[in-house]
Amino acid sequence: MAEPLKIALAGLGTVGTGVVRLIETNAELIARRARRPIRITVVSARDRGKDRGVDLSGYAWDDDPAGMATRPDVDVVVELVGGSDGPALTLARNTIAAGKSFVTANKAMIAHHGLELAAAAEQAGVALKFEAAVAGGIPVIKGLSEGAAANEIERIYGILNGTCNYILSTMEDTGRDFADVLAEAQRLGYAEADPTFDVEGVDAAHKLSILAAIAFGGQLRFDAVETTGISRVLAADIAQARALGYVIRLIGMAEADFSQGTPRLFQRVRPHLVPFDHPLAHVDGATNAVVAEGNFMGRLLFQGAGAGDGPTASAVVADIIDIARGEKGVGFSMPAAELRAMEPATTGHRIGRAYIRFTVLDRPGVLAEITAAMRDAGVSIESLIQKGRDDEAGEVIVAMVTHEGPESAVSEAMRILEGADSLTAPPLAMQIIGQ
Amino acid sequence: MAEPLKIALAGLGTVGTGVVRLIETNAELIARRARRPIRITVVSARDRGKDRGVDLSGYAWDDDPAGMATRPDVDVVVELVGGSDGPALTLARNTIAAGKSFVTANKAMIAHHGLELAAAAEQAGVALKFEAAVAGGIPVIKGLSEGAAANEIERIYGILNGTCNYILSTMEDTGRDFADVLAEAQRLGYAEADPTFDVEGVDAAHKLSILAAIAFGGQLRFDAVETTGISRVLAADIAQARALGYVIRLIGMAEADFSQGTPRLFQRVRPHLVPFDHPLAHVDGATNAVVAEGNFMGRLLFQGAGAGDGPTASAVVADIIDIARGEKGVGFSMPAAELRAMEPATTGHRIGRAYIRFTVLDRPGVLAEITAAMRDAGVSIESLIQKGRDDEAGEVIVAMVTHEGPESAVSEAMRILEGADSLTAPPLAMQIIGQ
Repeated sequence: MAEPLKIALAGLGTVGTGVVRLIETNAELIARRARRPIRITVVSARDRGKDRGVDLSGYAWDDDPAGMATRPDVDVVVELVGGSDGPALTLARNTIAAGKSFVTANKAMIAHHGLELAAAAEQAGVALKFEAAVAGGIPVIKGLSEGAAANEIERIYGILNGTCNYILSTMEDTGRDFADVLAEAQRLGYAEADPTFDVEGVDAAHKLSILAAIAFGGQLRFDAVETTGISRVLAADIAQARALGYVIRLIGMAEADFSQGTPRLFQRVRPHLVPFDHPLAHVDGATNAVVAEGNFMGRLLFQGAGAGDGPTASAVVADIIDIARGEKGVGFSMPAAELRAMEPATTGHRIGRAYIRFTVLDRPGVLAEITAAMRDAGVSIESLIQKGRDDEAGEVIVAMVTHEGPESAVSEAMRILEGADSLTAPPLAMQIIGQ
Repeated sequence: MAEPLKIALAGLGTVGTGVVRLIETNAELIARRARRPIRITVVSARDRGKDRGVDLSGYAWDDDPAGMATRPDVDVVVELVGGSDGPALTLARNTIAAGKSFVTANKAMIAHHGLELAAAAEQAGVALKFEAAVAGGIPVIKGLSEGAAANEIERIYGILNGTCNYILSTMEDTGRDFADVLAEAQRLGYAEADPTFDVEGVDAAHKLSILAAIAFGGQLRFDAVETTGISRVLAADIAQARALGYVIRLIGMAEADFSQGTPRLFQRVRPHLVPFDHPLAHVDGATNAVVAEGNFMGRLLFQGAGAGDGPTASAVVADIIDIARGEKGVGFSMPAAELRAMEPATTGHRIGRAYIRFTVLDRPGVLAEITAAMRDAGVSIESLIQKGRDDEAGEVIVAMVTHEGPESAVSEAMRILEGADSLTAPPLAMQIIGQ
């Protein structure tokens, strides 16, 4: 059998130790599949003394991760340190500059610096791989960049953040409110102490921008993702959506329009209403799922574990196996120089139905004020319900579903009502996903 | 840009003309993704004069598909002729012998001759690719052999035949019986004039054996797939299943047991009861879906269009793009010599719940006879319902769900009741899929 592929592993958190465990547990099988053994030679992390539940005595230890790139006993560097810049980025640049392949699970770094790194890797003739950066154990980057490569992708959307999905589906199952479920998720270790990146949609936006670049052959535009998280979703919204035949999910969605001049890119992360009979309505807990729609393949769905040590390690090692097989690929499914500049799309042209919820003071004229704003903005109301909230005196909820119409009309209605005295909080508008 | 990759296309049926349309429509995009243009140079089919709705005047025509392999204007041969042997197999062997890569959508040929062809392709240093042979437009072969490559796969199962799924979901929606829905599907072109391969599960068995070889690193054993089709599923079964919280789906399932000596392979195609909250319960119409369970990645689901010209062409051209990118892969995710011989598993050890339905004469003692057989075989009954059939005089249906227990006990009960006078047809046993 061929020479082993020698791996340096930077970062020994949950995913890093998962990679160690996987490569040890499945060593024999991996060697058969990769046509050569895969061997970790050196590891690095902040604290050498920490007990991680895996035996590291067989590997060299390097206190300087950035230096691992140039070690003679290393063919591929695996970065699981995290952070969009700093040591992770230094390590990526050093590894590629040293003419070695680089594998990472770092979505923030790829969302911010993916284009630069992909171009450098091509120049150096090495692989840059980041399957684990999006949707954990689901091979969605491979699925899009290779499996769906023959298609013009028209739209991608999906559930890209396991923490949000866990919180929303727990709210759904228990009727509890966001803050309560978040606190529990933090106690259980399902949410970070600072949950902002997850619950405000930033993590999903990182992943969406990576998928969009691959799907549409465009340059990464993380800066242009319109992002709304789930912190303002109420238990009452979930109950109301259910009564109407929907569940609420945080959906990242991207569409491209190549019909005129500079291609336009629409990217948005926002809670949506998903009808019960849509496959995404049955994605519960920390599961992730991605839908891609292509001009020949039709609709494709990938679903699986979106996080966790095992699934993420599975994606990291799949990348290593590709490299061992000599299949380097290119970062974003085509050479970096081929990726087109794309301008953010205005969303006003989008047509659809929306759910809009107001929390208002229970006093005369409030409903008239809201419905007048809808009329003036040209929003046609399909159904409306007003109900008191048990938990807060004097406050009621007004929830409506619109007929199909332009999103710009909904935005205009929101603008008219901005700062209205009778609203106790800004309204929340969520698009309804069609069949 | 690099030289075009030159394609010979044998077979111009629905999928063949789909490939022509795709390669023309998405030419510019494919060249960017493949890093070189992909160009059809020569085509071949039985009838040159037939109008196929695509302009073939730009391609050479060859009356002898087998001879295309040795033409100097061909780099890759795409076989869409079909049939497990005959011209398709000759073309495959000729192409590989000529040192050229071979792409096919032919599940029957791969199920029967895949191992031989994979070994020959490795020997010749060319690619053998057959993504389109399983589950149409879903990149499940790539997903298993590359995306999930780091995992020991414990089980794969899924909905692999679109015709059966269309018939079952139409029976479900309309309450009509099998024969009636099949006849309609034939009129609409969703089912073949001779539907045996589809409705008796042979097509699904071909696909299952291919997936099992890839998932478990074993030699293909199409001969060892235990196959039961859907032709004996009654509208009454579907109604009864629904009342119990299930839908009926034709499921192909494979499991491997490496725990002792020669690995054991369990492969079965059979209608199953799927609980409403399982992702496969929401796979309707001609959609396919495959679930793979790995020791690190957990459960992965791929879902999409299982047939049709566009989706199948998408898979064919994805294989061509891989070849254009220089990523040849190996047929079954590891070299043919590494694939282990596997022996068929006895299924008796499997534990689960089952649905068993009898059609019986409406006379005293029938229920006693059935329940006595269950008792004697050690099958524990969880629930039982007896109801008359409206459409056939004197015949009633007895449907039961068993408690969890060994499949061998259910088989034994079936054996005891074999040929019993009171049964008007052989009973139908269907396993119930767990969560």
